[in-house]
Amino acid sequence: MSSSSTGSRGETVPTVPSAAGVADDVDGVDVSGMLDRGRTLATPVLRAAVDRLAPPMDTVAAYHFGWIDAEGRPSAGDGGKAVRPALALLSAEAAGAAPEVGIPGAVAVELVHNFSLLHDDLMDGDEQRRHRDTVWKVHGPAQAILVGDALFALANEILLELDTVEAGRATRRLTTASRKLIDGQAQDISYEHRERVTVEECLEMEGNKTGALLACAVSIGAVLGGADERTADALERYGYHLGLAFQAVDDLLGIWGDPEATGKQTWSDLRQRKKSLPVVAALSAEGEAAERLGELLAADAKSSDFENFSEEEFAARAALIEEAGGRDWTAQEARRQHTIAVEALDSVDMPERVRRQLVALADFVVVRKR
Amino acid sequence: MSSSSTGSRGETVPTVPSAAGVADDVDGVDVSGMLDRGRTLATPVLRAAVDRLAPPMDTVAAYHFGWIDAEGRPSAGDGGKAVRPALALLSAEAAGAAPEVGIPGAVAVELVHNFSLLHDDLMDGDEQRRHRDTVWKVHGPAQAILVGDALFALANEILLELDTVEAGRATRRLTTASRKLIDGQAQDISYEHRERVTVEECLEMEGNKTGALLACAVSIGAVLGGADERTADALERYGYHLGLAFQAVDDLLGIWGDPEATGKQTWSDLRQRKKSLPVVAALSAEGEAAERLGELLAADAKSSDFENFSEEEFAARAALIEEAGGRDWTAQEARRQHTIAVEALDSVDMPERVRRQLVALADFVVVRKR
Repeated sequence: MSSSSTGSRGETVPTVPSAAGVADDVDGVDVSGMLDRGRTLATPVLRAAVDRLAPPMDTVAAYHFGWIDAEGRPSAGDGGKAVRPALALLSAEAAGAAPEVGIPGAVAVELVHNFSLLHDDLMDGDEQRRHRDTVWKVHGPAQAILVGDALFALANEILLELDTVEAGRATRRLTTASRKLIDGQAQDISYEHRERVTVEECLEMEGNKTGALLACAVSIGAVLGGADERTADALERYGYHLGLAFQAVDDLLGIWGDPEATGKQTWSDLRQRKKSLPVVAALSAEGEAAERLGELLAADAKSSDFENFSEEEFAARAALIEEAGGRDWTAQEARRQHTIAVEALDSVDMPERVRRQLVALADFVVVRKR
Repeated sequence: MSSSSTGSRGETVPTVPSAAGVADDVDGVDVSGMLDRGRTLATPVLRAAVDRLAPPMDTVAAYHFGWIDAEGRPSAGDGGKAVRPALALLSAEAAGAAPEVGIPGAVAVELVHNFSLLHDDLMDGDEQRRHRDTVWKVHGPAQAILVGDALFALANEILLELDTVEAGRATRRLTTASRKLIDGQAQDISYEHRERVTVEECLEMEGNKTGALLACAVSIGAVLGGADERTADALERYGYHLGLAFQAVDDLLGIWGDPEATGKQTWSDLRQRKKSLPVVAALSAEGEAAERLGELLAADAKSSDFENFSEEEFAARAALIEEAGGRDWTAQEARRQHTIAVEALDSVDMPERVRRQLVALADFVVVRKR
């Protein structure tokens, strides 16, 4: 693989040479179409599941998913990249089943993902999500808690009502992933209050918060399709490391991403004082830049003027992170995780088309700009 | 059955003539011993489950359960009446299995119950639970959300790791009960903002908040013990109506209970403006007392001085509720639900000893003073 770009903010992070850098076609695979298929097949079932909720929880959930606006009017919404549903359908195909077999898994994983978003946004006090006010901001904290709980319960309900041995196994994997998701959020909260976090701690937290549910998404379809535990475990390994690669790229975009593409502010993660991978890696490096960065961030933590910092002040911090090697290290980590993910697929016997699609999705995840 | 007492505050509510009115011996059955057995067998497994949580969630959960105090020192705690664990063990025996077969069910139900307490206390802004500061008050709202989520996930984990078909069925029933629990809390919150709630709405809410999980407790052991769906459904019916009887008595104690026995303030539910059964039944009655009560409560809702109301002012409201028939109606409703519960047992073929214990537990629930 080629080395990553270390150019200025706004450039892409081309970590995989073969990829086109756009979603439509990666390695000759129509990634856009693959993501669209997941969204198209899973969304109606997801909406039907959410419709089961008693009022006003159904409305609050519909707002969260972007299907209606704060006044209850229908809305096109931004369903996100829909990587998880796409993975769940491919997962079923990896086990030789029809993609539709993965739909309840796709829906259950999306429900758990959104349960965690609802609760995390409240715990973190985040007021915006997908360019809209968060649920607790619009409907109040009680509804955010309640609807999160309901989506979590609904996820298990959707799977268990299939009433098969496979569904029981799928629910068990989803429960394990949910517990990791919660562990990751607990770590994230506790790290906020600490001055120093090691790279290992950061990776463990990101593995829990992002890796575990992607791992579940890419194994759950196969489990529902009757795959054995060994196959499911290998697919989980792919998903877990795909998640870590995804998060490393997210952490790069959180600092050096193009605001027009990401929809976030410039230097977004720095403004939120996030201890993301580039920051943690830079702080744990040797040398003058790392030392200067450590002093600056320690002072920032106590600064009452932090919210009024200029673009230049954030740019100076980003430059120090880069100089201390935090950007390079994170780009390399994304490639490393991408490699482990793709290699995990080697031990699984699956249709060649599905393998090519999973590899293309991994490539897409590390070259995306948003 | 005899009629209920309509005496002054502090008296018991003797709804079942054969019962002794104390927990130790009801209908010749050692109810105390039965509750102790549930507590003794389930608690070590519950503690081991909670110990799986990552720090600081394990500590926060241990505080919630009363095993440690706010400073982390070991504490005897008040584990509550432990009706649910006792039911789960009897449930296994009802299906002809050993009581121990019900333990994972007992633990899972306790985890779900406590997940809901953690979240409900935060949503309702309740600062005290079992004579101690609530978790959100001591450890902050984020920990209350997070640990609640973790206990909910843990409940499913405990069951699913049994890895049997029966465990899958048990998890499905627990999920259904959890969804009802959440529906009930949603109703409870929405009723707070409404001037009038019908008796039917109140019963539906109480069935969701209290009946559903008791129903699950008394069926889950049987399901784990291999009972068929018909048997499990009949046991659920017993538990659901037992829950409604339990809640009706709770609503009586919430107004006329002896503070020394309940550990609550005098007129506790009136101080919290709860739309409990006696209040709702009184408001829906005809006549002068009901009318006067409606006017008073409507004025109270707007009063800025409500928190400084004297004992006499609350006593006047309680007298009006009684005069309008709210106390009698609720006591009668407790007996009615008790009868339905006990009759549901008729359709289940179970050891006579177990049947006698379930009947005694139902009797205990309606004669208890706290």
